[in-house]
Amino acid sequence: MKIKPLGERVLLKRIEEDEQIRGGIIIPDSAKEKSQEAEVVALGTGKKDDNGDVVAFNVAVGDKVLLPQYGGTPVKVDGVEYILIDEDSILGVIA
Amino acid sequence: MKIKPLGERVLLKRIEEDEQIRGGIIIPDSAKEKSQEAEVVALGTGKKDDNGDVVAFNVAVGDKVLLPQYGGTPVKVDGVEYILIDEDSILGVIA
Amino acid sequence: MKIKPLGERVLLKRIEEDEQIRGGIIIPDSAKEKSQEAEVVALGTGKKDDNGDVVAFNVAVGDKVLLPQYGGTPVKVDGVEYILIDEDSILGVIA
Amino acid sequence: MKIKPLGERVLLKRIEEDEQIRGGIIIPDSAKEKSQEAEVVALGTGKKDDNGDVVAFNVAVGDKVLLPQYGGTPVKVDGVEYILIDEDSILGVIA
Amino acid sequence: MKIKPLGERVLLKRIEEDEQIRGGIIIPDSAKEKSQEAEVVALGTGKKDDNGDVVAFNVAVGDKVLLPQYGGTPVKVDGVEYILIDEDSILGVIA
Amino acid sequence: MKIKPLGERVLLKRIEEDEQIRGGIIIPDSAKEKSQEAEVVALGTGKKDDNGDVVAFNVAVGDKVLLPQYGGTPVKVDGVEYILIDEDSILGVIA
Amino acid sequence: MKIKPLGERVLLKRIEEDEQIRGGIIIPDSAKEKSQEAEVVALGTGKKDDNGDVVAFNVAVGDKVLLPQYGGTPVKVDGVEYILIDEDSILGVIA
Repeated sequence: MKIKPLGERVLLKRIEEDEQIRGGIIIPDSAKEKSQEAEVVALGTGKKDDNGDVVAFNVAVGDKVLLPQYGGTPVKVDGVEYILIDEDSILGVIA
Repeated sequence: MKIKPLGERVLLKRIEEDEQIRGGIIIPDSAKEKSQEAEVVALGTGKKDDNGDVVAFNVAVGDKVLLPQYGGTPVKVDGVEYILIDEDSILGVIA
Repeated sequence: MKIKPLGERVLLKRIEEDEQIRGGIIIPDSAKEKSQEAEVVALGTGKKDDNGDVVAFNVAVGDKVLLPQYGGTPVKVDGVEYILIDEDSILGVIA
Repeated sequence: MKIKPLGERVLLKRIEEDEQIRGGIIIPDSAKEKSQEAEVVALGTGKKDDNGDVVAFNVAVGDKVLLPQYGGTPVKVDGVEYILIDEDSILGVIA
Repeated sequence: MKIKPLGERVLLKRIEEDEQIRGGIIIPDSAKEKSQEAEVVALGTGKKDDNGDVVAFNVAVGDKVLLPQYGGTPVKVDGVEYILIDEDSILGVIA
Repeated sequence: MKIKPLGERVLLKRIEEDEQIRGGIIIPDSAKEKSQEAEVVALGTGKKDDNGDVVAFNVAVGDKVLLPQYGGTPVKVDGVEYILIDEDSILGVIA
Repeated sequence: MKIKPLGERVLLKRIEEDEQIRGGIIIPDSAKEKSQEAEVVALGTGKKDDNGDVVAFNVAVGDKVLLPQYGGTPVKVDGVEYILIDEDSILGVIA
């Protein structure tokens, strides 16, 4: 991957809605503007705790995750669109 | 369950109003837009304290809980609607 | 009691105004929308300090307390109305 | 006293303006809406520091203190009006 | 002095503009509403650090100091006007 | 370099859009006002942690980084324009 | 110097624009209302860290520094205008 996120940021790639329906997870209408699925592409350098130790991420590269619609910064690398977002803003991991 | 919440979030399933009346707990009119009952379906990976230790949850899977109406993000899995919410926002456990 | 509050919340039952007058404590007109009396019905699971130890409550079940009017969430159990509120928001204990 | 304040709150009784003038302390016109004198009637259970130890109060029962006009909650006990306020909001002690 | 400030507050007496000019320090027009000179009359009981130890003041009784115009509470004692202000709000000491 | 940034600030030089396209990273239209590429020219004196130790930077002089459009202060040195920005505001490093 | 700043404040003397141009550092038009050059005239008594130790300044008397336009309080001593500002607000040191 061409981009290494800084701090507690992770780089995500949105999963197309078609795939979402096939995966069995459908976001209800009222929530359509609130959440969406994405795949973790790269982890950041990590947040540091009060002792200066890097805090481990709860997500791993390849995980499918649920995102709130707002938050994160879009960026396009070699024609593919990604999202940079704090791990803290990720709602959950999809099994 | 298909979703593993991150951090101090828990995944809840709303309890229908009919069941609420049968259970003997009725939310007063003035509070109808303030609270509601739900069942804990999955716990998050846990909040970390200043030492980096995971803080235990005060709720367990299967607990019936009281929620404020605002807060949390709805998500539908295999046709069933759930709520993702911080444990801190749960008002209490119903015995 | 059917409800166990979470964290530093306590469950209170409002004391009727008639009882308040008999008890000798009368809230002045200008403060009528600011405070009210209630009885502690159940304590929460407790707030945790920085070491993860549960902080003891300063109120006990059965205590009569003074509340600010704003704050807390009303909830009705078996036809009786209660209030869920942070202990921190309670002004004082009435001897 | 019938009321035991909680936390860092103290219970105060306002000193009438006549007494203030006799005591030699007069609040200037421009400050009349900013400060006032009161006597400490009861101390709270005390604020707890990061180690869980109760922090000692800097005022004692019987002290005459200077208050900002805004802040605190009025309460009437057996026909006498009092103020509940955080010790932190008290400006100074009058010798 | 009749007033003992609480916490990190100090009691100041404004220095008249005439004295300011004689002292060689003149506040520029554009700053006239931003700063003013005063003399320290009494120190507070002191701010406490995280260990509960009282933090020493950087100003002493008798010091001439520079104040921002906004902040502090005026109070008149035996006909003389004073200002109660947090030490943190004092800009500097005039040698 | 003529400027040594203070604290956690870093000094950056924007990379012209032509170079960005050649590098294969293109910011999507909707994000055009949100991010941009720059090169790290100088690191600050460093942020200090709670123990007073300087926290190491996650970027190095010469790194190409992704910036949000807002944030930072422009400054021109010998006719060349630079940006002063907190390291925390840098989104990621471009490999 | 007649003024000793308190805490983390430093006393600065603005450098005239003529000198700035001669020094080779020119602030771009768009930034003209954002930054300016000044010389450090006096350091404060110092900020204290959590252990009560004084944190060393990153600037020294005589340093030329870059300032944001907003922030700081102007003060005139013996006819010369100075600025009092937190060290944290200084963008960088000019070599």
